[in-house]
Amino acid sequence: MFKLKHILLTIAYDGTNYNGWQRQNNGIGIQEKIEEACYKIFRQDLKVIGASRTDTGVHALGQRGLITVDTSIPVDRIPYALNSVLPDDIVIRDAKEVPENFHPRYSAIKKTYHYHILNEKFPMPQYRNISTFISSGLDIYAMNEAAQYFVGTHDFAAFCSAGSSVKTTVRTIYEAFVQKEAPFITFKVTGNGFLYNMVRIMAGTLIEVGIGKKKPSDIKEIILSKNRNLAGKTAPPQGLTLVDIDYED
Amino acid sequence: MFKLKHILLTIAYDGTNYNGWQRQNNGIGIQEKIEEACYKIFRQDLKVIGASRTDTGVHALGQRGLITVDTSIPVDRIPYALNSVLPDDIVIRDAKEVPENFHPRYSAIKKTYHYHILNEKFPMPQYRNISTFISSGLDIYAMNEAAQYFVGTHDFAAFCSAGSSVKTTVRTIYEAFVQKEAPFITFKVTGNGFLYNMVRIMAGTLIEVGIGKKKPSDIKEIILSKNRNLAGKTAPPQGLTLVDIDYED
Repeated sequence: MFKLKHILLTIAYDGTNYNGWQRQNNGIGIQEKIEEACYKIFRQDLKVIGASRTDTGVHALGQRGLITVDTSIPVDRIPYALNSVLPDDIVIRDAKEVPENFHPRYSAIKKTYHYHILNEKFPMPQYRNISTFISSGLDIYAMNEAAQYFVGTHDFAAFCSAGSSVKTTVRTIYEAFVQKEAPFITFKVTGNGFLYNMVRIMAGTLIEVGIGKKKPSDIKEIILSKNRNLAGKTAPPQGLTLVDIDYED
Repeated sequence: MFKLKHILLTIAYDGTNYNGWQRQNNGIGIQEKIEEACYKIFRQDLKVIGASRTDTGVHALGQRGLITVDTSIPVDRIPYALNSVLPDDIVIRDAKEVPENFHPRYSAIKKTYHYHILNEKFPMPQYRNISTFISSGLDIYAMNEAAQYFVGTHDFAAFCSAGSSVKTTVRTIYEAFVQKEAPFITFKVTGNGFLYNMVRIMAGTLIEVGIGKKKPSDIKEIILSKNRNLAGKTAPPQGLTLVDIDYED
């Protein structure tokens, strides 16, 4: 009997060798590689609808992708089937059936990102693709204090790169902190949604706090200003990982 | 005035793209890349004498290499000079002058290695080149208990791959333990020297203890047997990092 299943995949990837989730410029997107794997396993041309369009070089542990497929493969075996044909820098970590009206982006209620900074005198080559290297000493306590100003519902226009067309730049941040997690200093942030480059601009601004170029309380002023030029630089993509996405039960 | 300096470099590398410290088979060795960098900076053909011949895929944070060079570059600037021409998977972390009779291998009194295991249901692609993936649940406490049997002066013939020609297979292990260090389970071992593949065979044997195939006390029997066939498999190279080498002051 023909019956379409709606299956939500949890996806991890090392974004180093891809031009983003959805192909940017030339090059290969992660979405495309998963669609190719789906074709090999299911023999159907299908679209993977992603929850988040991560940029070139950005990583994921908990990206989500929705596929609609006619298959007799048990849902809990789908990760193993797809992983058997995916390159080793993309891994399906989970698959579960969801209702027809589920949308990986619009049904999301929370997203969590981590931003890794390697703060040493010299880079550690093993970690060059999953962190940003900063040789100036960083004040973690000041960075963590600064991060607290992100928490709450604010207009984050100052933390949004040009070129995005969103209805509102108001977002709610539930949790934001900076901690030592050897070998990294990690900025962890959870919110109901993020603007274009928002986490990387937050990270770039926190780095400026860490080296003493900005005070923690400056964050409050920057948010109120709604002026992108007052925030810090957009930190490089390779430090960023989309860690998890929450949905209503 | 012409004066040769003997300079000890501390070297970190991601071994993924190299055929070992000293070129193995075809492909490029890390030593070779550093010699090329030295030529670019010093305009002299020189040899880098390594402390340890790490295998293909093995990493380092604290490898050492000795160069003898006529240069007016201040010793503390040499890492920056060499890093400016090295690929980004090799980093010189330190340079210091040593006496003429210093030898990076024979003067070493202690070496420390870490072996990273990723023990999850599915691999994390970001860490695929710097850890070994094991999906079966590992008993860290049993592994750590087992590691204690390595400590002391023993004949480690059972933990040595064929093909090495050493005078004695007796080595002293000062410290050995297994601990959770998110996202990894890490085996850390310090000794006065290591036989060919010794740390990887130790790690492979500890993994067998972790999955319940061997008991911690089996380690004692395996050491006494001096029989390579009784120890576990040689664990894959990418989990291994040469962390540090100590010399007498």
